[in-house]
Amino acid sequence: MPRIRLIIEYDGTNYRGWQNQPNGLAVQEVLERELEKLTGERIVIHASGRTDSGVHARAQVAHFDTLSSIPADKFCYALNVGLPADVRIIYSDSVYENFHARFCVKKKHYRYAIWHAPHASALNARTTLHIHTTLDYDNINVAAKDIIGTHDFRAFKAAGVELNDTVRTIYESNWSVNGRLVTYDVIGSGFMYNMVRILVGTMIEIGQGRRDKDSLKTALSTLNRSDAGATAPAHGLMLMGVEYADGFNTRDYV
Amino acid sequence: MPRIRLIIEYDGTNYRGWQNQPNGLAVQEVLERELEKLTGERIVIHASGRTDSGVHARAQVAHFDTLSSIPADKFCYALNVGLPADVRIIYSDSVYENFHARFCVKKKHYRYAIWHAPHASALNARTTLHIHTTLDYDNINVAAKDIIGTHDFRAFKAAGVELNDTVRTIYESNWSVNGRLVTYDVIGSGFMYNMVRILVGTMIEIGQGRRDKDSLKTALSTLNRSDAGATAPAHGLMLMGVEYADGFNTRDYV
Repeated sequence: MPRIRLIIEYDGTNYRGWQNQPNGLAVQEVLERELEKLTGERIVIHASGRTDSGVHARAQVAHFDTLSSIPADKFCYALNVGLPADVRIIYSDSVYENFHARFCVKKKHYRYAIWHAPHASALNARTTLHIHTTLDYDNINVAAKDIIGTHDFRAFKAAGVELNDTVRTIYESNWSVNGRLVTYDVIGSGFMYNMVRILVGTMIEIGQGRRDKDSLKTALSTLNRSDAGATAPAHGLMLMGVEYADGFNTRDYV
Repeated sequence: MPRIRLIIEYDGTNYRGWQNQPNGLAVQEVLERELEKLTGERIVIHASGRTDSGVHARAQVAHFDTLSSIPADKFCYALNVGLPADVRIIYSDSVYENFHARFCVKKKHYRYAIWHAPHASALNARTTLHIHTTLDYDNINVAAKDIIGTHDFRAFKAAGVELNDTVRTIYESNWSVNGRLVTYDVIGSGFMYNMVRILVGTMIEIGQGRRDKDSLKTALSTLNRSDAGATAPAHGLMLMGVEYADGFNTRDYV
C-alpha cells in the first residue's frame, strides 16, 4: 500500500500531546479523524515520537499507508482544509515502503524557550516558560556542554518509565540569549520521555545557583534521577525538526 | 490625584480591540475591572490610542488617576495577579499630572506580519496573515518609501470616519524578509483608524502585481479611498511601541 509522509506543525496548548489516549484530544486523533474523512479508510498514523501534553512542534514527521487517489503532494492541502488552525500540514510526499517515521530517525532537534523578564509575556505565554529570577548563563552554558557525546541518560528519565536502552548521543547542546527570550537548543540521536524537560529543569537550577555546576556530570555518572533537577514545564518545549538516516531533513522544508 | 502610567502587552485575539464597546470584551474593560478590584475606585484608563478588534500590542501605553496606596512601580505586579494571561502589564510608574498617554504621543511604531508560505503556520496563526501567492518584495519596498514624510493620508482613512486632520508624518516605512516571516515596520507621528491596515493592503496588492507600483503616490495625491487597496486583516497588526514628547519611550522597557 502506498506510504505518505507528512511534516506537521502544531501549537500543543490545546492538546494532550501527540499520542491518542483516553482523556482529552491528541494531535494524532485530530489527524486520523481528518484522514478518515478524506479517504474513507481507518488510518493509523506513526510519528517520529510522542510529544508530551502541551509540547509544540515546528516540524513533526509522520507516515501512514493509504489506497486513496489523492496525490501524495496534495495531502497537505486536503488535510489543512478540515484541520483546526493550530495543526497544519506543511509538507507531504510519497515515500518508499521501508521508511518509518520513528524507526528511521537519525537526529532530533528540540528547543526549550524561556521568557526571562520581571513579567510574563502576553504574546509568548503559550510557548515560553516565564522566569523572573536571576539566571547565570555562563554557568548554564558550560554545564550544557557536559552532556555532549554518548552517555547513559538514565538519571534523566521520567520515574516509572521502563526502558532497556537509556544510552543516547547528544550532538549539540547550547543556550542563547536574545533579549528577554532565552532558548536552549539540543540535537541528539533520540530523547526519552521527559528527558529534555529534566535536562532543562536541572540547568535552570544550576543557573539559579540552587544546584552545583557539575550536576549534569554527576547525574550522568551516578545514573540517579535524584541527582537531576525538576522536570521543566511542557509548554516551553518544541520539537524543531527531525533528520533521517536517508538524508531527509525537515530543515529543508520549513 | 496621583497619575500612574502603564506599559501593556496583549494578544488581541480574544478581544474586541482596546476601547470599551457594547459587544464583546475590550482590553480596556479587563483592565478597568481589575483596577476597581484593587483600588475600590471606578477608574477610567486612557491609552495612547485605540487598537482595532484583533490587533495586538507589544507595548501599549496608558494612564489613570488613583488615590490607591499601592506603590506606582508595584501596580504591574498587583494587576498581573488577576489579569488573564493574554494581557500583561510589563511596567508601571508614577508620572506627572500633565502627562497624557494619548495627547503627548510623539511617535508610534506598528508592525504588520505576514506568513509567506504555501501553508499557514500553526504556531504563528494568531499574529500573522497567511499569504501563499507570489509577492514582489522589491516593488513593495520601493512603494513603501513613497509614504515617508508629511502627507495628507485621507485616502487611507476608513470609510465613514469623520476627521478634520488627516495629515500625518511617516518617519520609517520598511519591509523585511526573514524566511517565511515577512514584516512591515512603520513609524509615524500618528495613524488614523485602519490606516496601517489600508497601507499594508495596498502594498500587498502592489506585490501581487494587482495594482500599479505608484498606487501609494497616486492615492496620496488624489486623496481618494478608492485609489488605495483593501484593508488588510487585523490579526497581522501589532502596536510595537510608543515614544513621547518628554523622551519616555517604551523601547527602553520591553
